[in-house]
Amino acid sequence: MAKENEFVSQIADIETDFPQWYTDVVLKTKLVDYGPVRGTMVIRPYGYAIWENIQRELDKRFKETGHENAYFPLLIPMSFMTKEAEHVEGFAPEVAVVTHAGGEKLAEPLCIRPTSETIIGTMYAKWIQSYRDLPVLMNQWCNVMRWEKTTRPFLRTSEFLWQEGHTVHATEEEAMEETMKMLSVYEEVARTCLAMPVLTGRKTEKEKFAGAVATYGMEAMMHDGKSLQAGTSHYLGQNFSKAFNIQFSDKDGALKYGYTTSWGVSTRLIGGIIMTHGDQRGLVLPPVIAPVQAVIVPIASKKPGVLEACRALKGRLAEAGVRVTLDDSDNSPGWKFNEWEMKGVPVRIELGPRDLEAGKLLLARRDTHEKSEASLECAEAAVAALLDDVQQNLYLRAKARMESRIVSAETLDELLDGVNQGNFVRAGWCGCRACEDKVKEFAQATARVFAKEDTAERCVACGKKSAHTVIFARAY
Amino acid sequence: MAKENEFVSQIADIETDFPQWYTDVVLKTKLVDYGPVRGTMVIRPYGYAIWENIQRELDKRFKETGHENAYFPLLIPMSFMTKEAEHVEGFAPEVAVVTHAGGEKLAEPLCIRPTSETIIGTMYAKWIQSYRDLPVLMNQWCNVMRWEKTTRPFLRTSEFLWQEGHTVHATEEEAMEETMKMLSVYEEVARTCLAMPVLTGRKTEKEKFAGAVATYGMEAMMHDGKSLQAGTSHYLGQNFSKAFNIQFSDKDGALKYGYTTSWGVSTRLIGGIIMTHGDQRGLVLPPVIAPVQAVIVPIASKKPGVLEACRALKGRLAEAGVRVTLDDSDNSPGWKFNEWEMKGVPVRIELGPRDLEAGKLLLARRDTHEKSEASLECAEAAVAALLDDVQQNLYLRAKARMESRIVSAETLDELLDGVNQGNFVRAGWCGCRACEDKVKEFAQATARVFAKEDTAERCVACGKKSAHTVIFARAY
Repeated sequence: MAKENEFVSQIADIETDFPQWYTDVVLKTKLVDYGPVRGTMVIRPYGYAIWENIQRELDKRFKETGHENAYFPLLIPMSFMTKEAEHVEGFAPEVAVVTHAGGEKLAEPLCIRPTSETIIGTMYAKWIQSYRDLPVLMNQWCNVMRWEKTTRPFLRTSEFLWQEGHTVHATEEEAMEETMKMLSVYEEVARTCLAMPVLTGRKTEKEKFAGAVATYGMEAMMHDGKSLQAGTSHYLGQNFSKAFNIQFSDKDGALKYGYTTSWGVSTRLIGGIIMTHGDQRGLVLPPVIAPVQAVIVPIASKKPGVLEACRALKGRLAEAGVRVTLDDSDNSPGWKFNEWEMKGVPVRIELGPRDLEAGKLLLARRDTHEKSEASLECAEAAVAALLDDVQQNLYLRAKARMESRIVSAETLDELLDGVNQGNFVRAGWCGCRACEDKVKEFAQATARVFAKEDTAERCVACGKKSAHTVIFARAY
Repeated sequence: MAKENEFVSQIADIETDFPQWYTDVVLKTKLVDYGPVRGTMVIRPYGYAIWENIQRELDKRFKETGHENAYFPLLIPMSFMTKEAEHVEGFAPEVAVVTHAGGEKLAEPLCIRPTSETIIGTMYAKWIQSYRDLPVLMNQWCNVMRWEKTTRPFLRTSEFLWQEGHTVHATEEEAMEETMKMLSVYEEVARTCLAMPVLTGRKTEKEKFAGAVATYGMEAMMHDGKSLQAGTSHYLGQNFSKAFNIQFSDKDGALKYGYTTSWGVSTRLIGGIIMTHGDQRGLVLPPVIAPVQAVIVPIASKKPGVLEACRALKGRLAEAGVRVTLDDSDNSPGWKFNEWEMKGVPVRIELGPRDLEAGKLLLARRDTHEKSEASLECAEAAVAALLDDVQQNLYLRAKARMESRIVSAETLDELLDGVNQGNFVRAGWCGCRACEDKVKEFAQATARVFAKEDTAERCVACGKKSAHTVIFARAY
């Protein structure tokens, strides 16, 4: 075998060295590789196929909720960035700047989009005149660039792929409804497709998007108890419409500023899937987004009829809509079991001469490692049912873990203790920035989202009356 | 109505001012708008939906032919570009350069990919060790940047969207087979999906891709008789594998350089569709890629039952897989007819009280403006059949036009005459660069592709023995 293809069972211990486990898994399963420029990644076919499956699920829902895809330019004049004061403050330090093109120095430097509110806002101002033009509901799938100091594949890279929705509405109510609707679309996709339970809620001023009135996020608990911000939906109010002059004449003839929203998820979701479901053997992929849902491993493949039966089975399963592959390589079955387990394929099918004789096949599920038999005749139904079951189980398992690891704290010491043990910590907060900063300093934890219910009485940092019950956690 | 939404019937004359006709049509139908940075475009939802349909058709075929999608970084170190001598000469003058990022000057300037042979080659060199790793068959969908002096939406813009396939093979034969296979995939998609007949063939040294051993292109004839290079497939030999050290140990144990190919089509295809099929009333879109295949226009829509019947019909057609819309706006039917014709929707369905009474509907096809009746009961079948017929007719019509406008020339004067009359001109060529340049200077025509058959005896420029029969044309 070629060096790069060698199956290497050495994956760092998931409990004692989770960061190295993550790096080992993403590289060894060929999801991703490091790009030549610091902080960039190459998304390899196995990783990109996961992204395509996520895209398909999201794109369908975006269209069902009335959005259309479009494409806006990569390069944004620097002067656009400065029109919204908070926005430029948040993003200017991270932009990559084009100063020369076509052999000449540019009159105005251009930045590579870190996000597209400014350029899309400029076009919306041109396109929108009347209330009849509203709402405008667009989305784009694209690459963005944020020059980060510390990077990790999928989780934080200078370039990443994402979608960004940008909408304009005539009223605050409609814009808020859109903001919450798209947050719920994200939550539903996380739950039903990625098997990833999330907490959703509003973010603090400190943690919100630069330029937003309010940011709503979804946070997922990773294997190590840290939180991953897995998606955000921003209510932008009239901040951007005023900065970019997005005005419309209303039914009453008056000229008014629109209310805008933006919302996005990125290839970071792939990192979330890995760190939610993975185990010591490697990836565990939810069937809905797994590039390969079932792998057929022939047993005693030289025996007459075995390979033919495996090929026929593959054809039947593919016909039934299963993403199936047949591993007819020269490697031993044991080697194949390890390799496909590492790659996180939800269901392994073993088929050998004795199975054929008995008209059976053996099914091994990746999540629990349980094995079961099924009749060869009903293979399609058995595999489909097992895939459903794996998908359900992954979600319920992750949900139970997350729920068992949300604890409450009334003091900073309790909060520190909670996050040290890999928990999300529910605690009161008075609402002032100084206390939020104090939690960060004391426990290296940040306010992830406001809890659904305000149960805390006192601020965990200052002891004054609590204004919000907040979920604190360490975060990626 | 809002200003921007006003239907404007003034489209420049297609016969006397084709460039202005093109600009009018792409802007008025909201396919595209100019971006704020010179030479950039915004692809609006109606244009992007065409691109999504083209992507779907191509992507399916790429996967069927064994290719996998991946994603490589946008930014390429300048030093990579210089490793292949011809390549850097061709692309360096057009690149956009990032010199600063994250608030600091970069140690090495980075260019925004104009094409990705260099960065993909670098990764392939790392990934490929053995003949067992070959062939490598990847594709990526992405944006690229080429800083052009003169730009036009879709046809030539500094940023555009495309796909680029990059493959590595153990032998020259396999790489050549791949080069020709992908050219034929492009030709088939142009023919069956875009209804766009093309001439395919090898390009001259002057017109080939910078760094290729041989470039094969497909050329389509636009309404004005000019040629559009609509797709290219390059056999790169060992040029890039030597420059980037893409080596593998072969079955015999020897270390060898791989043979590589690359191939691409872009959003330029949208310009090709517009200029192949459009007429004085605006766009004419082939059903396979039309965002809206059929529009229902209610007649006397205030009459009881009309709107309800239109909605029911829309539901039935959508259920049958037709991309259908119902125009229930307050505009008059005449206004709607004009607007949807301008937008190129292949089939218009009119339904009014008398039709309902008679159990009929009226079908108007965009390509020939013919109208026909169909029974309301069998609407699905009638619409599907008509869409098929429009698709066929568009192709046959464009093919007949192209074939009737390929003429032969034996002298430069005849060649000039031919291109002046909007023809492709078949002529002999001795094979020397001086004669190719002479044709360009004399007739502003370039060698598009080598003809399938060598029928010419003498070079059109120097009169010496012809080495290749070439299709010359003016080109976009």
